[in-house]
Amino acid sequence: MAGTDSSKEFAFRPTPAIILVEPQLGENIGAAARAMANFGLWDLRLVNPRDGWPNEKATASAAKALPVIERVQVFETLTEAMADLNLVLATTARNREMFKPVIGPDEAADRLSAHIGGGQKAGILFGRERWGLNNDEVALADAIVTLPVEPAFASLNIAQAVLVLAYEWRRAALKDQPLPFSADEGEPAPRGQLAAMTEQLGEALDRAGFFKTPAKRPGMMNNIRAMFARGGFNAQEVRTLRGIVAALDRRHERPNPSRHKGEDEAE
Amino acid sequence: MAGTDSSKEFAFRPTPAIILVEPQLGENIGAAARAMANFGLWDLRLVNPRDGWPNEKATASAAKALPVIERVQVFETLTEAMADLNLVLATTARNREMFKPVIGPDEAADRLSAHIGGGQKAGILFGRERWGLNNDEVALADAIVTLPVEPAFASLNIAQAVLVLAYEWRRAALKDQPLPFSADEGEPAPRGQLAAMTEQLGEALDRAGFFKTPAKRPGMMNNIRAMFARGGFNAQEVRTLRGIVAALDRRHERPNPSRHKGEDEAE
Repeated sequence: MAGTDSSKEFAFRPTPAIILVEPQLGENIGAAARAMANFGLWDLRLVNPRDGWPNEKATASAAKALPVIERVQVFETLTEAMADLNLVLATTARNREMFKPVIGPDEAADRLSAHIGGGQKAGILFGRERWGLNNDEVALADAIVTLPVEPAFASLNIAQAVLVLAYEWRRAALKDQPLPFSADEGEPAPRGQLAAMTEQLGEALDRAGFFKTPAKRPGMMNNIRAMFARGGFNAQEVRTLRGIVAALDRRHERPNPSRHKGEDEAE
Repeated sequence: MAGTDSSKEFAFRPTPAIILVEPQLGENIGAAARAMANFGLWDLRLVNPRDGWPNEKATASAAKALPVIERVQVFETLTEAMADLNLVLATTARNREMFKPVIGPDEAADRLSAHIGGGQKAGILFGRERWGLNNDEVALADAIVTLPVEPAFASLNIAQAVLVLAYEWRRAALKDQPLPFSADEGEPAPRGQLAAMTEQLGEALDRAGFFKTPAKRPGMMNNIRAMFARGGFNAQEVRTLRGIVAALDRRHERPNPSRHKGEDEAE
């Protein structure tokens, strides 16, 4: 699929575990696995999944996220699922009236990154499709994570919540690293090249009668120079602009370009 | 659904437009609408959707995101869909070998927040399910947004990409005050005006025989569009550019401008 580099192996770095508590639909498990793979997470744990495991629908909807599906662990209770972790965050959209800190996904990612970066283990809890996590389960966590959703439409499905947390994790974990690709913009052209181009343009405009009022020419040329200077054009672009000006300027010498097929012409 | 406060009205704040280019599946449109609603976005625009509009599958999979579905606008071309915006970001996972800045979703959200906070309009482009946006479309944007995905599994579906951008938008919008705007520069011109100018230039260059090799014209025009898009020209400057192109283009009708003293001429 667009963008995927098949030559690259999945890099199994230390990452937070994603724990789904009593997930009902296989499609949601598969979608969660895909969201995890997109951002480099691989440790998926299921607590008492409704349809057991393995789950055909989960595998099917996981698509190419096989590295995640192959490593799924299944537990009967949440306590067992989080036994080896010493930082656990619970995702929920509802106020729990509980003495539990509430943080956003960005702060959650910072905390997870620091904790795991220090060699420890962490996890994030996600609840059931219909009613999320119950209070007993939230009580086990160190903090609540809630997404800054629109109050009138606050419900995210499990895979979407996993996606946002996974994205934030990766952003925090890679903070100082470059994006998958960056632009080769080229440096802005030396000012001398730009000045030569605008002067060439000015002369062409003179020949075209553009400056209706000679007294206004200096001011108008200054605006034109400022406009092109602010454009930040690189050397190649300045050459293109010179070619454009030259082509339009010289056109009057070639009233019917189609008669001159085969004739060389600068681009 | 868990967490949604039905007593709250959807708050229609100024937000970026989400533009889906030739979306194929109604389910993806609906899922994108939901992702938008979750984070308070509501301006969804479709360019040439495969199955037309309205679309039953889209409405069904949008679930309660009706405020978004009801406001969907459909356009035949991307240029029309973005005509009123003066900041447009294109999402892609592939390196485009184009002179176009590349930023992550967090930086994208900061730029959008500052721009919209200053009272201007912006949008984000998402491509087709199979192969995203084509180079012509990316060339129209001010910058490329790419997500920090795992290289071995880089493909996100449209709704997922929308979700991450929508989440980042809301995070930025709720966090920062907008940047102050410098009134001296004027706002960048709406994309529709810029597109009209580059098309006019392209036609003038056709008449001038600038495109020596017809097969190269699309790529060269993309470079020209990208160059002018990056310039950030305001509406007055775009008018000046149109005047420049018109003057040079029409010059062939006036081989000796000095003979036509006193004749009115558009600047």
